[in-house]
Amino acid sequence: MDVGGDSDKEFVGYRGKALAFLAKSKASVGDILEAKTEWGTVIGTLVPRYEHADDRHVVLKLKSGYNVGIAVSKLRSATVKKSGERPAFSSSTPPSSSGKLPRVLVIGTGGTIASRVDYRTGAVRPAITAGELHSLIPELSEIADIEPEILLNIFSENIDPVHWSKLAARIGKAVEEGYQGVVITHGTDTLGYTSAALSFALQGVPIPVVLVGAQRSSDRPSSDGTQNLIGGVSVAALAPFSGVYVAMHLGEGDNEGVAVHRGARVRKNHTSRRDAFVSVGVPLAAVWRPTGLEDIASDLPGRGGVEPSGGAQGGRRGGHSRFRPFPRFDNRVALVKFYPSMPATLIASLSKMGMRGLIFEGTGLGHVGSKDLNAVKAFVKGGGLACMTSQCINGRVNLNVYDTGRDLATAGVIPLEDMLAETACVKAMWALGNSDTVEAAKEKMLENLAGETTPRRFPG
Amino acid sequence: MDVGGDSDKEFVGYRGKALAFLAKSKASVGDILEAKTEWGTVIGTLVPRYEHADDRHVVLKLKSGYNVGIAVSKLRSATVKKSGERPAFSSSTPPSSSGKLPRVLVIGTGGTIASRVDYRTGAVRPAITAGELHSLIPELSEIADIEPEILLNIFSENIDPVHWSKLAARIGKAVEEGYQGVVITHGTDTLGYTSAALSFALQGVPIPVVLVGAQRSSDRPSSDGTQNLIGGVSVAALAPFSGVYVAMHLGEGDNEGVAVHRGARVRKNHTSRRDAFVSVGVPLAAVWRPTGLEDIASDLPGRGGVEPSGGAQGGRRGGHSRFRPFPRFDNRVALVKFYPSMPATLIASLSKMGMRGLIFEGTGLGHVGSKDLNAVKAFVKGGGLACMTSQCINGRVNLNVYDTGRDLATAGVIPLEDMLAETACVKAMWALGNSDTVEAAKEKMLENLAGETTPRRFPG
Repeated sequence: MDVGGDSDKEFVGYRGKALAFLAKSKASVGDILEAKTEWGTVIGTLVPRYEHADDRHVVLKLKSGYNVGIAVSKLRSATVKKSGERPAFSSSTPPSSSGKLPRVLVIGTGGTIASRVDYRTGAVRPAITAGELHSLIPELSEIADIEPEILLNIFSENIDPVHWSKLAARIGKAVEEGYQGVVITHGTDTLGYTSAALSFALQGVPIPVVLVGAQRSSDRPSSDGTQNLIGGVSVAALAPFSGVYVAMHLGEGDNEGVAVHRGARVRKNHTSRRDAFVSVGVPLAAVWRPTGLEDIASDLPGRGGVEPSGGAQGGRRGGHSRFRPFPRFDNRVALVKFYPSMPATLIASLSKMGMRGLIFEGTGLGHVGSKDLNAVKAFVKGGGLACMTSQCINGRVNLNVYDTGRDLATAGVIPLEDMLAETACVKAMWALGNSDTVEAAKEKMLENLAGETTPRRFPG
Repeated sequence: MDVGGDSDKEFVGYRGKALAFLAKSKASVGDILEAKTEWGTVIGTLVPRYEHADDRHVVLKLKSGYNVGIAVSKLRSATVKKSGERPAFSSSTPPSSSGKLPRVLVIGTGGTIASRVDYRTGAVRPAITAGELHSLIPELSEIADIEPEILLNIFSENIDPVHWSKLAARIGKAVEEGYQGVVITHGTDTLGYTSAALSFALQGVPIPVVLVGAQRSSDRPSSDGTQNLIGGVSVAALAPFSGVYVAMHLGEGDNEGVAVHRGARVRKNHTSRRDAFVSVGVPLAAVWRPTGLEDIASDLPGRGGVEPSGGAQGGRRGGHSRFRPFPRFDNRVALVKFYPSMPATLIASLSKMGMRGLIFEGTGLGHVGSKDLNAVKAFVKGGGLACMTSQCINGRVNLNVYDTGRDLATAGVIPLEDMLAETACVKAMWALGNSDTVEAAKEKMLENLAGETTPRRFPG
């Protein structure tokens, strides 16, 4: 780490070039600075940066509340106009619980909630008490009785089936404890995998479980963290439906909306945009706006009259006492994306590595090269679970149209309809983890358990 | 195969239930049938089916020219109203070459061109002479002097680097032979991989090289094969720009347009829709319509004023004599899509299998789990070429934002900007095939050679 945390509070999060510039200018976090740049003068409060931010920008909060990042290379000078106090997370007292607001458990997985809902994690100062959360996002206290809890503290790309189990078990307990909803703050890298995992592990959960992330950290202009958290807490507290969902920024053209995606049909489709998350092949479950939670209807593109809470993807709230999670996962599953010249030996190698399941991301309707066929056959004959999805992302696999597909089906490869490859990988881990035999796992793969597939429009 | 070809001409392509029904009705291909179904009566000519079509439908061509597929299960009876001649590919004489039309070479890769431009291949009767092509698609003879040639006859998912080399060498020769353009008919499964491969192997090609496929075969209603071929031939014959492109149906709302995609930035994003192919992060190069080839301008979404023929993705026509292809590929490259709990041993295994290059499809900005880091380090230290792309598809990788990214960069992993993972895999095969050292291949990976990356808008 380039900068100390508490040991060097005046430049929280700054390092390298940016740190050198600020030190030279005798500016501290919290000071109001007049910064002269190549393109004009900016007056604003120097705000802290997050741990993993680059070292080439200084961030000022304008009077309007908008944060501006200024490249050090464009900065000519910075003058302290007014010494400020270091902005700290004050721990103001939230309004005492009237007992009338829904109780919502907010689970942190990256050591960070609220102001520090970060792209993956890396908060210098996580806000972890109800008081801190209230101080940062007073709106939350009007929506729900928030109870924050840090369950994990790891980078999103390191979250794996062990952590999914831990989350599922904790949420199972939260249902027993009478929470009306659960929010999980999670790095966006693998947020879709975790939401799929919880969709299977928490089938029939009687409350809304909402995963929330942020594509832009709170020290950057137009961060989406706060808004997504408010949206997520609103869904957890107020939604009439239960099930697992992802709440993320709706769209670049709509700065107010938070999209509520079904947990098993959501994909991160952009590396950096705030509206990176999309529902694939299904309408959104709902949209949150500052005016409230909208049970969206046919006026939204693709909505098409599907009930947000219908079918396997969730139900109405209720039935607390009967719910039990299925938190086991078997991580001996590999996601295999086919590409031209992929060697058949790869399949044999994965088998030797102890894989019990292979999820193929085939081409088109679900194909791999003919020369891979024997290896696939051998894997299935040896008791492996082999399934087919498509790298096209959109649309449905079909192993009945062409010879290669029919050969794969004959070899025992299970076509997974329009299931996302990532969801299929997670589902196979769950199915193997919760079945006594591979046959039983196969049956689970074919059943639509958590809205992971959609019905064929034209059966055949 | 369920049905003979020439041995059973009356039911070309029919088998199973459909064959049984037709035999019972004493109907032959070419007959005009009155078919009574659950929902009404249809009169039309029984047309042949393609080899790999399902066995549950009978296809009639209506007077309007529209083909209707009728499920055998819905058919009550079929009566022969008029015995017809079997529709054959007549070999009418195309207008004799005036020498004024551009010469276009049409290369078949699946044994099939024109009427039989099939989803992957499987035509019962490929149209392979200029006369047959003229007879099937007379419009082609008004656009160009077509010279058809069957180079390969394999399923699209079996096309690999050996075939890319063969194609590149043939096109190199075609340039010498003075063709004004080349069209390649190709199954859609791996069409994007081949177009990327040719983009690298044919850098600086002085003529347009256009890959064309069809999502729906010609015996199905609303086949896109003919239209895509006319569009592709038009681009090959008439476009002012050179380079490698893909010509496919523009969009469901536009039944006339054929989109012209840049060869290294196109992806098949739907298993079955005609408009499955999309340009990722770049505007289309052009659009063909029956009115002609449109050098599309700013009125098309995302067009944004980029020259279709500018930069690395192509140039103006010309310079035949100086052009030489780079047709070598090294297939010892693996595409590795990261997923939660991906074992580090997978990387070691791929190394043991002799892989010289690994293209990671990481999460978000380009991450893999921390536990994979040592294996990646070892692979690079052992002389391997390791590169990073994102499974988000859209957006740019950035290894400078987070610790995991910085660790990967330090380990020698090359961030590939916004290059598609599939293109990156193909490029690595090409770079290793055309470099004496891994260092030289690395340099090629970092250079934008064929429009495979776009410039950063905000350098940083």
